[in-house]
Amino acid sequence: MSSSAAAKPVLYAMYASSCSWRVRIALNLKQIPYDIQSISLLKPVPDTVFSNTDEYRKVNPMQQVPALHIDGHTLCDSVAIMHYLDETRPSNPLLPHDALQRAKVREIVQIICSGIQPLQNAAVLTQIGKEKYLPWAQQWISRGFRGLEQVLASSAGKYSVGDAFTMADCCLVPQVFNARRYEVDLEPYPNIVRLERELSAVPAISAGHPLRQPDCPPELASK
Amino acid sequence: MSSSAAAKPVLYAMYASSCSWRVRIALNLKQIPYDIQSISLLKPVPDTVFSNTDEYRKVNPMQQVPALHIDGHTLCDSVAIMHYLDETRPSNPLLPHDALQRAKVREIVQIICSGIQPLQNAAVLTQIGKEKYLPWAQQWISRGFRGLEQVLASSAGKYSVGDAFTMADCCLVPQVFNARRYEVDLEPYPNIVRLERELSAVPAISAGHPLRQPDCPPELASK
Repeated sequence: MSSSAAAKPVLYAMYASSCSWRVRIALNLKQIPYDIQSISLLKPVPDTVFSNTDEYRKVNPMQQVPALHIDGHTLCDSVAIMHYLDETRPSNPLLPHDALQRAKVREIVQIICSGIQPLQNAAVLTQIGKEKYLPWAQQWISRGFRGLEQVLASSAGKYSVGDAFTMADCCLVPQVFNARRYEVDLEPYPNIVRLERELSAVPAISAGHPLRQPDCPPELASK
Repeated sequence: MSSSAAAKPVLYAMYASSCSWRVRIALNLKQIPYDIQSISLLKPVPDTVFSNTDEYRKVNPMQQVPALHIDGHTLCDSVAIMHYLDETRPSNPLLPHDALQRAKVREIVQIICSGIQPLQNAAVLTQIGKEKYLPWAQQWISRGFRGLEQVLASSAGKYSVGDAFTMADCCLVPQVFNARRYEVDLEPYPNIVRLERELSAVPAISAGHPLRQPDCPPELASK
């Protein structure tokens, strides 16, 4: 293994980014030590790199978080990164063995990562504007959660798909965090709420919580 | 194999849906015969099922296309379906063997499936409204294509990642089709345009073209 491959992975992340949290959960679950390079998505913040810089464009051409420098390479996109970690570090797997179960996990992953999160991310909400962003975010999260609730009603056991932790769980908790942030009424989604409560006790998830990240503003951070 | 497992797969699809086209390409590439159940996303069309029905909600809780009934089960989401097909029908693979190359394929897949398509799908554009939908679609496609172009500049060979066809290619051509539909200026993206030209000659792609689908209105259909 080259020295670059043996170096500690570096996660380019932002505390409030749900996509960053997904990868923090996966890294924690697999007990992979990593350093954090904090990235500011929307405006310069002390001790962070602004995402809209030529420097960061070299890291991630989409100028988004997360990106992960690992094994001498920089990988982008949370779903691609979770799969890479699972394929190269198979202990504490993020996917079941059975192909149908894997398809169910990926369906949930994509409902969240393609069907919900992109429509309520910071760049889109900025575009929608101050007066309309909240009902916009609520509408799209609620629409996605209605479908997700129906999927989980038949797929979930202790976790999102059966009783084993998967990458669906890495995605679920951060999305519920966003839902609360945008004041979505969660009452119609008992399975989502039950799973979030169960999952919040998993150390890999709680250790990656946005309010426990180095770039979280002190006035917000958990004590 | 049970009779339901041996039955011909049924693809729930809409001719103009880029996500449906991704799966048509994967099925064609793997030479899996299938039947089509046409779904109308926005309004009832003769000989189709309207997606906003209780009947279709039982097929896909997200009320989106595609869904695929195969091996006695109904799978939802194009990315989950492509992975399932690749894991259960490994001939003509949709992913490389190398983990880093797989991460690159999935990065491209997610740039398109999470970073671009969700922001320009029919439901979102309807919400944005008649007067603003075109610049909205153009802005988000262009933003995504700027990042995608940079990724492809280093990843592409004959196809999106090296010289072998992958699920990145299944996603690329349908997204370029959407870009043209929304009159995006493609001049700044020579790699995207070059790959689309190369890929359009692949029979699995051309056979799945929206204008060759049974629910394509006759006045639009290719002769």
